Amino acid sequence: MISKEFQDFFPVWDKLTPHQQEKLANTVRYEYAKKGTIIHNGSLDCVGVLLIHSGQLRAYIISDEGREISLFRLFDRDLCLFSASCMMPSIQFDTIIEAEKDTDFWLIPPNVYKAVMEESAALANYTNDVLSSRFSEVMWLMEQIIWKSFDKRLADFLIQESAIENTPLLKITHEKIANHMGTAREVVTRMLRYFQNEGLVQLSRGTIEILDAHKLAHLGKDQ
Amino acid sequence: MISKEFQDFFPVWDKLTPHQQEKLANTVRYEYAKKGTIIHNGSLDCVGVLLIHSGQLRAYIISDEGREISLFRLFDRDLCLFSASCMMPSIQFDTIIEAEKDTDFWLIPPNVYKAVMEESAALANYTNDVLSSRFSEVMWLMEQIIWKSFDKRLADFLIQESAIENTPLLKITHEKIANHMGTAREVVTRMLRYFQNEGLVQLSRGTIEILDAHKLAHLGKDQ
Repeated sequence: MISKEFQDFFPVWDKLTPHQQEKLANTVRYEYAKKGTIIHNGSLDCVGVLLIHSGQLRAYIISDEGREISLFRLFDRDLCLFSASCMMPSIQFDTIIEAEKDTDFWLIPPNVYKAVMEESAALANYTNDVLSSRFSEVMWLMEQIIWKSFDKRLADFLIQESAIENTPLLKITHEKIANHMGTAREVVTRMLRYFQNEGLVQLSRGTIEILDAHKLAHLGKDQ
Repeated sequence: MISKEFQDFFPVWDKLTPHQQEKLANTVRYEYAKKGTIIHNGSLDCVGVLLIHSGQLRAYIISDEGREISLFRLFDRDLCLFSASCMMPSIQFDTIIEAEKDTDFWLIPPNVYKAVMEESAALANYTNDVLSSRFSEVMWLMEQIIWKSFDKRLADFLIQESAIENTPLLKITHEKIANHMGTAREVVTRMLRYFQNEGLVQLSRGTIEILDAHKLAHLGKDQ
């Protein structure tokens, strides 16, 4: 039952040998996590590689003081490697993976994924690609936060606009905000989507609705 | 002439097929960069994968305003992938690679490295490992800078100590600093080494010498 759909979802299935396919099919488990479940918690566990069937996961890091930074989201068909970081000894940092919506997924044991990856250039290259994408997302975030404090500046801008217009529903284009803030439209759009993922704003055509003004105003500040 | 030493330096040489070895040996070039040379500049070029014979490279990012953050150093036998980021389309950020000392290295054309990596699980897994290490270094830096401003706090501490003792040569253990700052010794040691690599301090047994007090005092501030 598993294997038909799993085959379709697994990224490089057709490039694996029958033996490798069998190894995966025999060990993979289909699992379900309710919204809010912590699926993986830093170095405390090594549950395995997750292949999302449907749902949404959030990967984040957390400071000693409990402050969080969301690194990226994972959606249908995405592969989550960090929940199996024990299989990659060079990954020296801890992420937490949380089900942000009810999520069902296939769980591949870390030793099985690793064994197949060590044999299969296709899977190793795919893994590389996933890792590069996540790396790029984190670099973008790092540059925006460290250099520009762009997250805080954009948050301040939205709060001010909302105060001026006396409404949480702002009618303003990303282009206009970009001009105000001396940056590119793409940067504004990307950070607004980040805010939306964080539940701070809701974007629709031509409008930005502030959902959580308090959290927005305190962005990056100690609670 | 090249091939004997190159074989020894190339990380997974023995796991490549004769055809793959030949492909690399036929296209690799031995190059030399004087201290201060910019070997790779963001998205402006895609020179290839560098395998360092001897020397030291620095990878860094630079903001629109010209502020730099060093991401990591590369030494003898290290492989530099970011100078060939065009071969990894999921790498969406720009790094600059500079020769920090006179460096000689082998340069592998990006299309050749990519072609071999696509066939060879050994090379793909090794590449994965390199990428994971770099990712981890960047995550560490990000956590320290964003959450703790630990770079600035440590810099401030050193400046103050130096003022109190009226000398740039501080006799203090990393353990003691860690206690002062409420963190772990490992974190202090690692950040001090980062400072040393940046030319800000010189470490020896039991002492920390401040080499560039001005730069240290202005760490992270706009120049």
